[in-house]
Amino acid sequence: MNIYDISKQAGVSIATVSRVLNGSPNVKPSTRRKVMDIIDQYGYTPNAFARGLGLDTMNSIGIICADSSDLYLSKAIYYIEGNLRKNGYNCILTCSGYNHDDKEAALAMMINRRVDAVILVGSNYIEADDETNRYIMNAAAQSPVFLLNASMDCPNVFCATCDDFKAMQDAALALIDSGITDILYLYNSHSYSGRRKLGGYRSACEIRKLDIAQDLMQFYEGSHEDIDGVCRFLCGLRAQGLVFRAVLASEDMLAAGAVKYAKKNGIAIPDELSVIGYNNSLLTTCSDPEITSVDNKLEALCFQLVRTCIGVLNGEKMPPKIIYSGELVHKGTTRLVH
Amino acid sequence: MNIYDISKQAGVSIATVSRVLNGSPNVKPSTRRKVMDIIDQYGYTPNAFARGLGLDTMNSIGIICADSSDLYLSKAIYYIEGNLRKNGYNCILTCSGYNHDDKEAALAMMINRRVDAVILVGSNYIEADDETNRYIMNAAAQSPVFLLNASMDCPNVFCATCDDFKAMQDAALALIDSGITDILYLYNSHSYSGRRKLGGYRSACEIRKLDIAQDLMQFYEGSHEDIDGVCRFLCGLRAQGLVFRAVLASEDMLAAGAVKYAKKNGIAIPDELSVIGYNNSLLTTCSDPEITSVDNKLEALCFQLVRTCIGVLNGEKMPPKIIYSGELVHKGTTRLVH
Repeated sequence: MNIYDISKQAGVSIATVSRVLNGSPNVKPSTRRKVMDIIDQYGYTPNAFARGLGLDTMNSIGIICADSSDLYLSKAIYYIEGNLRKNGYNCILTCSGYNHDDKEAALAMMINRRVDAVILVGSNYIEADDETNRYIMNAAAQSPVFLLNASMDCPNVFCATCDDFKAMQDAALALIDSGITDILYLYNSHSYSGRRKLGGYRSACEIRKLDIAQDLMQFYEGSHEDIDGVCRFLCGLRAQGLVFRAVLASEDMLAAGAVKYAKKNGIAIPDELSVIGYNNSLLTTCSDPEITSVDNKLEALCFQLVRTCIGVLNGEKMPPKIIYSGELVHKGTTRLVH
Repeated sequence: MNIYDISKQAGVSIATVSRVLNGSPNVKPSTRRKVMDIIDQYGYTPNAFARGLGLDTMNSIGIICADSSDLYLSKAIYYIEGNLRKNGYNCILTCSGYNHDDKEAALAMMINRRVDAVILVGSNYIEADDETNRYIMNAAAQSPVFLLNASMDCPNVFCATCDDFKAMQDAALALIDSGITDILYLYNSHSYSGRRKLGGYRSACEIRKLDIAQDLMQFYEGSHEDIDGVCRFLCGLRAQGLVFRAVLASEDMLAAGAVKYAKKNGIAIPDELSVIGYNNSLLTTCSDPEITSVDNKLEALCFQLVRTCIGVLNGEKMPPKIIYSGELVHKGTTRLVH
């Protein structure tokens, strides 16, 4: 039984059978059922299909992320995969970890698999120096490369980014303008986005003519899931005598740790400590009080990046960079003037 | 520049170049660097590689899950992808959603792509009736199928499961034996695992000769991320006069909603309300107090499932079913005798 037989038996076109086999949504449920019933009844030979349609070498997009279980990255993958599938593309997923050599190997592997395009999910693929980013330029010479929430000037590289600089600047300004000047900036990544956020915080301090004490910028080295570790880290800073009336965090997980820290030390939120997170994830609603956080428009970014990708693959001229604005979502850990 | 040229230039075997290109970890960092430098310097032709090595059609495993952004499923994908990659396999990821026809289409698409095996991640692929599961049997006739946390008796189908029946039974018994009899069982899935958990709860009640009031088994229909929705749902039950001194939840998200509900209504945890979740996820440490939860050994299950998968693909005889025991992890939302 091959695709021609099935198309004949079902009384539909070969293209329709192909769409059913590819899981395309553009098929009437009754038609899909008819085709699937015939396949169930007679069986089919995927090799013959694949040879006939070239399905095994076509319509594959490589998705690379550091860690597919990270809250932010897993959401991104979900949105990207779904949007690509709606456009008839399959996803090959690889988690590269955060180590440079592993990232480079993952990208080389994808290119080698002859994917139609590669999407690098998350901003930790772009370093500050061009030399380290050369592996992306090399890949882009072979296949278009799409960056989610990172940016790079290079032919055949396309980006959809949230303006994390501006969003973090706005968050810091909101704290300062509500009268809080001793803000602890807590971060855990030196990625492209991590550097932009830090820059936004510094810029807000400069605009309001605040001195930035070096010990009010703290880097947390622990695991991305260790909320208790963040709590202990902040307890340690307090024990060393560091005074802060707000925690401005580059990620919700860090903010959740700050809420725990306040609880543990009997510090009232938001009266004695304000907390702002980033990503506006599930963690913000799980905490008590709920955490004020920056919505970085992930779904819109993913949608846009896939739209750009499909356009490029269809030979259309697409903008190399699209930038979205983040938005501070006010919840229970702040009492800001807004 | 083809693989032979690179192997010659780098002074390593073709197999080593292939391992580097496939992102295999079994390559010395210095060797990988040497090979990558030559590739960076001279460029390479992926098509030629792919033709020469057959890389485009080999070593692909299809991973299907309902929603790759779900906390439990995203962790599973992370563990499975990483373990497969260490064994030289690439992952093709598809999210099927929870609808039967879409699940069937996703599986058919994977089989059609000539993947070496398909892994169905999460227990919502197996229904109670054999007829609905026929699509899996049909797929297994073409390619081995691996089920994470689900079970099915069928040739060429292999399972790694947590004994959710026993784990939920143990959790319910722990509540009952600490003197709490009015337990609200809160669940949000009719999946294989969902049915097993419910069965475990019922069985515990039967063992301790408790009547199970129908209105103490409540199904939450809202989104898997809407913790506030769960809180509102429980407030509604309370308003209707339902009395319960414990919430035994089939998922941590539901338990997090129960903690919120207690806070909102001034109900002391654990003195007036005990809460037990399931999955022992990040949400349990984010809540205050931290949530007692069942660790269902996800990492071990994923590791085992990949081991079985690799064994099957290598032609070894592998056990069709491996069952792990869950474990109740005591935290702040219970005061159990243990």
